[in-house]
Amino acid sequence: MKENYMKLAIDMAASAKGQTSPNPLVGAVIVKQGEVIGLGAHLKAGEQHAEKHALNMAGSSAEGADMYVTLEPCSHTGRTPPCADAVIEAGIKRVFIGSDDPDPRVSGRGINKLRKAGVEVHTGILKEETDALNSVFFHFAVTKTPYVTLKMAASIDGKIAASSGESKWITGSASRMDGHLLRHENDAILAGIETILADNPLLTTRLPQGGKNPLRVILDSRLRIPSEAKALNEDAPSWIFTTEQAEESRIRELREAGVTVTVMSGFTIQLDEVMEKLGQADVTSLLVEGGGTVHDSFLREKLFQQVVLYMAPLLIGGKDAPSSVSGSGIHRLADVPRLKLLSVERLGEDTKHIFHRESRND
Amino acid sequence: MKENYMKLAIDMAASAKGQTSPNPLVGAVIVKQGEVIGLGAHLKAGEQHAEKHALNMAGSSAEGADMYVTLEPCSHTGRTPPCADAVIEAGIKRVFIGSDDPDPRVSGRGINKLRKAGVEVHTGILKEETDALNSVFFHFAVTKTPYVTLKMAASIDGKIAASSGESKWITGSASRMDGHLLRHENDAILAGIETILADNPLLTTRLPQGGKNPLRVILDSRLRIPSEAKALNEDAPSWIFTTEQAEESRIRELREAGVTVTVMSGFTIQLDEVMEKLGQADVTSLLVEGGGTVHDSFLREKLFQQVVLYMAPLLIGGKDAPSSVSGSGIHRLADVPRLKLLSVERLGEDTKHIFHRESRND
Repeated sequence: MKENYMKLAIDMAASAKGQTSPNPLVGAVIVKQGEVIGLGAHLKAGEQHAEKHALNMAGSSAEGADMYVTLEPCSHTGRTPPCADAVIEAGIKRVFIGSDDPDPRVSGRGINKLRKAGVEVHTGILKEETDALNSVFFHFAVTKTPYVTLKMAASIDGKIAASSGESKWITGSASRMDGHLLRHENDAILAGIETILADNPLLTTRLPQGGKNPLRVILDSRLRIPSEAKALNEDAPSWIFTTEQAEESRIRELREAGVTVTVMSGFTIQLDEVMEKLGQADVTSLLVEGGGTVHDSFLREKLFQQVVLYMAPLLIGGKDAPSSVSGSGIHRLADVPRLKLLSVERLGEDTKHIFHRESRND
Repeated sequence: MKENYMKLAIDMAASAKGQTSPNPLVGAVIVKQGEVIGLGAHLKAGEQHAEKHALNMAGSSAEGADMYVTLEPCSHTGRTPPCADAVIEAGIKRVFIGSDDPDPRVSGRGINKLRKAGVEVHTGILKEETDALNSVFFHFAVTKTPYVTLKMAASIDGKIAASSGESKWITGSASRMDGHLLRHENDAILAGIETILADNPLLTTRLPQGGKNPLRVILDSRLRIPSEAKALNEDAPSWIFTTEQAEESRIRELREAGVTVTVMSGFTIQLDEVMEKLGQADVTSLLVEGGGTVHDSFLREKLFQQVVLYMAPLLIGGKDAPSSVSGSGIHRLADVPRLKLLSVERLGEDTKHIFHRESRND
C-alpha cells in the first residue's frame, strides 16, 4: 500500500515535468483510515508546494493522517513558507518520504523538524523512482550547472545525414514529436553555429498540445549567425556565446535586436564556462541538439548526464556521411565513458533509447 | 488449439536451427482425440523428414489422426521418399499446414496429392511464423543465392573502433556469445581482407556447448592474405575470392595448403557473382562480419536480407573513428533501403536489434 500511494505521488509529480524549473517535481498524497483525503503536486515555481496543495484539499481531516511525499518537505522560507511547519500544524501523524533533499546545506533539516515535533517519519520509500523523478533538480542542486541531455537522431549505422548532406528526415514523425517533448521538458536547448547555418532550425517546441519553448543557446565563436536566422526570432529568447573573434559591430547589432550575447575571453568557447553561466541564469536542464562536433565537445569534456537516441531503421553507410558524434572523438577505448541503458522502446518505426552516464567513470 | 499444436511444431523445428542446411526447418505434431501421439522435426539433411519422425512415433494409431506440419509435405522423391505418400499411407485424416512450399516448381503439389487421396487439408496456420522459421530456406529456394545477414557490433554512435584503431571489445560478452550463435546458424561467414589483416580473426564458432563452424569466405582481390592467417587454419574450410590481380604463385601456394581459391575475372570482386558461386555450392545463409567497407558494398548492392546490430552503451565519437558501414555509402536519402525492426532485446549491457530489409524497396 505504501508503495501504491508513493507511486501515485510520483505520477502526479511527473505530470508537471518541464514546468517547475528551477524547482523540483514533487507530489504528495494524504491518506486517513485507508481513504485518500488529499492530493497535491508542485506545478510552477513561486506557486504552492505539493504538500500545501494536498493539505488544502484535506482541510481539517488532515489531523492524524499519513502523508506520502516524494521529496523531503522544506524547512526554510523561500518564496513560500516552510512545508514542514504546515505539515506539523495540520496535525499529520506519519510522513513517508521518497528522496532526501539533495542540497547538502539543508538535507535532513525538514525531517528533523518533523521528528522534533513528534511526527513519525519514514524515509527512502521508492527512493530510486523519486530520485529519478528529479535527476535534473538533484544534479543542479549539487553542481549548480545544468543537467545535460545529448539528443541524437541517427540511422542504425550512426549517420545523421547522407553524404549528400540530406538529413530530412532520418527519423519518423513519432520520434520528431517526442523530440519536441524533450524541448518542452528542458529549460534550454543548445546548437552549434554549423547546425544553424546548415538547417536554419527554429529550436522551438512545436507540439499539438502546446508546450513551453526552451531558451535557445547558440555556440558561435566567430559570430557568423545571420540576423535573420530563425533561431533568433521572437518565439523564444536567444543567447549566443561567442569569443574575442566576434566583430564588435555584430555584437551590437544582435544585442539591439534583443539577443543576449556573451563574449568569452580567448578564441575558443570553453564549455565548462558556458555551463557555469547557464547555471547562474537558473538553467537547470539543457538539451544539446548538436551537430556532431558540438556533441563531440560535450562527450570529450564529459559534460553530459543523459543521451537520448532516436534510431531509424535505415542503413546509410559512407565514410563521409556525417555521424551523430564527429569531431576528434575519444582516442582510446579505456577513456570512453560508459553509459547505462535506462530504457528502450519502439516509437513508430524507430526505437528510442535513453542512456545515463555512469558517474563512476568521472 | 490448432495454433497451440502448430506453435509446438514451430518450436521443435526451430530447435534444429543451423543444422538442417540446405534443407528447411520443419516440425510436425500428430494429434488424435485431443492427445498428442506423434512428434517430429527435421534434424539434418539426408535424415528423415519431420512428418516421418512423427508418423514413426505414432505408429498404427496415426490412422484417423490430425497432423500439424509447419511446411507443405514434399511430393517428390529426394534423398528420402515423399512425405505426402507416407501421410496418406498412415491414414492421417486431416493435415494442417503452415507455409506452402516456396519452390515454385513444386509448390502445391504435396497439398494436391493429399487432397486427391481424400485427406482434408487446411493451409496457412500461423503462416507468418512458419514463413519466418524458414526465411533462409525460402530465400534460397527462390533466388539460389544465400540469405545474407550483416552483423554489426557498434557503439551508440555507430563506431566499431576508437580512432586509435582499438576495437576489443566494444560489445559485452553476452553479445559476443550471441554472435557465435549466429556463426553456428549460418552456412558461411564472410570477411574482407582488411578485417583479416587488422584483427586476424579465427571466424569460427566458439560456444560453450559446441556448435558448427561456418565455411569461411574471404574477399581478397590482391590475395594479400598471409598463409599463417588464423582464418586459414584447419578448424573449418576456407574459400578465398580473388581477382586477376592475384599472383599465380600465391594462388598455387594457398591451394596446396587446402584453401579453395576462386579467381574472378577483372580486377574487382563482383559481389553478385560471389553470391551465385556460394549458392551453387549450397551455401544457403551467409553471415557478413565486415569490416565497414565490405558492409558498405553489400549495402550499396542491396545484397542483404537481415541486419543484426549489437549496440554497446558507449559513445566513442570522432570523425575518423571507423563506422559499422563506411565506404562510399548511399548518396541520397531517397535511395537508402528501408529496414523493418523485427525485435530489440537487452543482452547484458548491450541491446540486440534484428532488422529485415523491406523488399518493396528493391
